[in-house]
Amino acid sequence: MVAQIIDGNIVANDIRKDIRLKMAELRLDGVTPGLAVIMLGDDPGSASYVRMKGKACTELGMYSQTLRLPSDYSEASLLHLIDELNANKKIHGILVQMPLPRHIDTQKVLVRINPNKDVDGFHPINVGKLLIGDRSGFLPCTPLGIQILLSRTGHRPDGKHVVILGRSNIVGKPLAAMLMQKEEGANATVTVCHTGTKDIGAISRQADILVAAMGSPEFVKADMVREGAVVIDVGGVRVPDKSVPKGYRLVGDVDYEAVRQKAGAVTPVPGGVGPMTIVMLMQNTLLAAERMQNLD
Amino acid sequence: MVAQIIDGNIVANDIRKDIRLKMAELRLDGVTPGLAVIMLGDDPGSASYVRMKGKACTELGMYSQTLRLPSDYSEASLLHLIDELNANKKIHGILVQMPLPRHIDTQKVLVRINPNKDVDGFHPINVGKLLIGDRSGFLPCTPLGIQILLSRTGHRPDGKHVVILGRSNIVGKPLAAMLMQKEEGANATVTVCHTGTKDIGAISRQADILVAAMGSPEFVKADMVREGAVVIDVGGVRVPDKSVPKGYRLVGDVDYEAVRQKAGAVTPVPGGVGPMTIVMLMQNTLLAAERMQNLD
Repeated sequence: MVAQIIDGNIVANDIRKDIRLKMAELRLDGVTPGLAVIMLGDDPGSASYVRMKGKACTELGMYSQTLRLPSDYSEASLLHLIDELNANKKIHGILVQMPLPRHIDTQKVLVRINPNKDVDGFHPINVGKLLIGDRSGFLPCTPLGIQILLSRTGHRPDGKHVVILGRSNIVGKPLAAMLMQKEEGANATVTVCHTGTKDIGAISRQADILVAAMGSPEFVKADMVREGAVVIDVGGVRVPDKSVPKGYRLVGDVDYEAVRQKAGAVTPVPGGVGPMTIVMLMQNTLLAAERMQNLD
Repeated sequence: MVAQIIDGNIVANDIRKDIRLKMAELRLDGVTPGLAVIMLGDDPGSASYVRMKGKACTELGMYSQTLRLPSDYSEASLLHLIDELNANKKIHGILVQMPLPRHIDTQKVLVRINPNKDVDGFHPINVGKLLIGDRSGFLPCTPLGIQILLSRTGHRPDGKHVVILGRSNIVGKPLAAMLMQKEEGANATVTVCHTGTKDIGAISRQADILVAAMGSPEFVKADMVREGAVVIDVGGVRVPDKSVPKGYRLVGDVDYEAVRQKAGAVTPVPGGVGPMTIVMLMQNTLLAAERMQNLD
C-alpha cells in the first residue's frame, strides 16, 4: 500500500473560496480586512514567509502592510509601532514574524499586541482561552491548519490517539491543547513526546495520527510509524541543493519516501501543512475584522 | 509488594515551614499576605473547602476574608465586589469558589480578577503563561500540588511517561501543560485520556505515573495499573456512610485497596492531593504578596 497524499493546497484553496464569500459580505458594510506584518532583520526564510503572507492578502483582496525593519530596530520603537497598529482602524490583524533579534524580549512584544488583533494566537490570553476551551480568542495558525486539514480530508481526530513529536509554543503545545478539547474535530487522546522522551518509537508506533513537529529533518523513519497511520509533517528546513534553481530544497521532519510506503496518509513538504498555515492567517484576519465590525 | 503511601500531609507541613520563614521576612516590611475567598450559595462540599482555606490562612498568620453570599447574589454585584477586592491593598489573593450558580458567567468572573491576585491560576492570561512556560503568572493549586508532591517524595516526573485521566480546566489540562514543559520537575512524556478515549486501560497500563482526575469514584482498578507505577488520586466525592460520625466518607477515583497491592506508590484519599492543594493556595498568596511588595 502506498499512502494517500494529503494535499494542503487543495484544502487551502477550498477555504480561500469560503473566505472570499465572507469578504463579499463584509464589503457591503464597507470593511476590508487588513493585516500588518512586522519583520526585523533579513533572514531569508523569514523574508520568504513574510512575502507569502503579503501575497496571500493581495490575492484575496485584503489590505496588507509589510513593515521590514532593520535587525537593530529598538524594542521601544517596536512597542511604539505596535501601539500605533493597535489604534489603526484599517488594521484588524497584527503579526510579528518570529524569531526576533536577541535584544528584544519576545514575550513583551507579544503581550503588547491587542488580543483582538492577535491573529497569530500567541498572546498569552489567547493561549489560555485555547487551553480552557473558550473559543472567543484566536487559535494559532499552524495547529488550526492541521486540525482543519485532518477533518477536511477524512481523518477526523475524534476518538483517535494523536501523538505529537515536539513541544514548541508555535505547534506542539497548542496543537495538543486543541485536539484534547471535548469538541467535534478534536476529542482525541493526545500524547506529547519530546527530547525528554525515552523511547519515542514505542509511543509513535501507537499513533493513529502522528504529528512530526520537532524541526529535525527526516527524524521520523518508517519503523516509527504504525501501518496505515496518518502522518502530518510540520517540518521544513532549507537544505542546500545545487541541482535545483533555488539552490536549496525544503526537507520535512518525516523520511517521506520510506514513510509513504507504510502510512495510510501523509502530508508532503512543501504542499502539506504550509499552505494551511497561510490560509488560517487569512481566516483569522477575516475573523478579526468580522468581530470588530460586530462590536461597532 | 504493597505500595508506598504518599502522605500529602507530611509534605504540606514541610512547605508550611518554608512559608512561615518567608512570611517572617515579609513582616519586616510590615506586610501580611491576605486572601479573600468568595462563595455563593450553601453547597456543603464547597462550604467545607472554604472553611479549610480560611483556617489554613489563620494557622499561618495570614489575613483572610471569607465572603459567603446568597446563591441568588447577582453577577453585577459579584463583579463589583471583585473590583473592590482588586483595589484592596490588604488583599493579595482573590479566590472565587467553584462551581458558581448557573445565572453567573464563570469566565466573566474569572477574567475580572486582577491577574496579579489570581492565586487560583484560572485567569486565561495565567493559563496561557502556564502553557507557554512563562513563570511570571500563577499556577493552579491542584496541578502544582501534584507536581511538588511527586518531586518531594522521590517520584520526579522528568523523563517518565505520565498518563492523566480527565481533562478538566482545574486539573487535567493544566497538569498536562505543566508536566510537558522543558523544566526540572517536569519534562515528562504526557498523555491525556478522557471520555473520548477508546481503550483507557491499554494506555493507563503504560504509565510510570498515573493521575486519576476524572471525578469517577474508584474508576481506576488494579488491572489498569502497571506493576510498580506511581498512582496519584485527585478524586474525592462524598459517599453516604452511616457507620461514621460525619455520615459520609470521601471516595477517590482509585480503587485504593486493590491498587495498592500492585502500584509502587499511591496517594490516599483523604490525605494525599487535598492537603497539597490547600498549601499551594497559601504559597500562591505569599507569592502574590511578595510580588506586590517588589513592585512597590
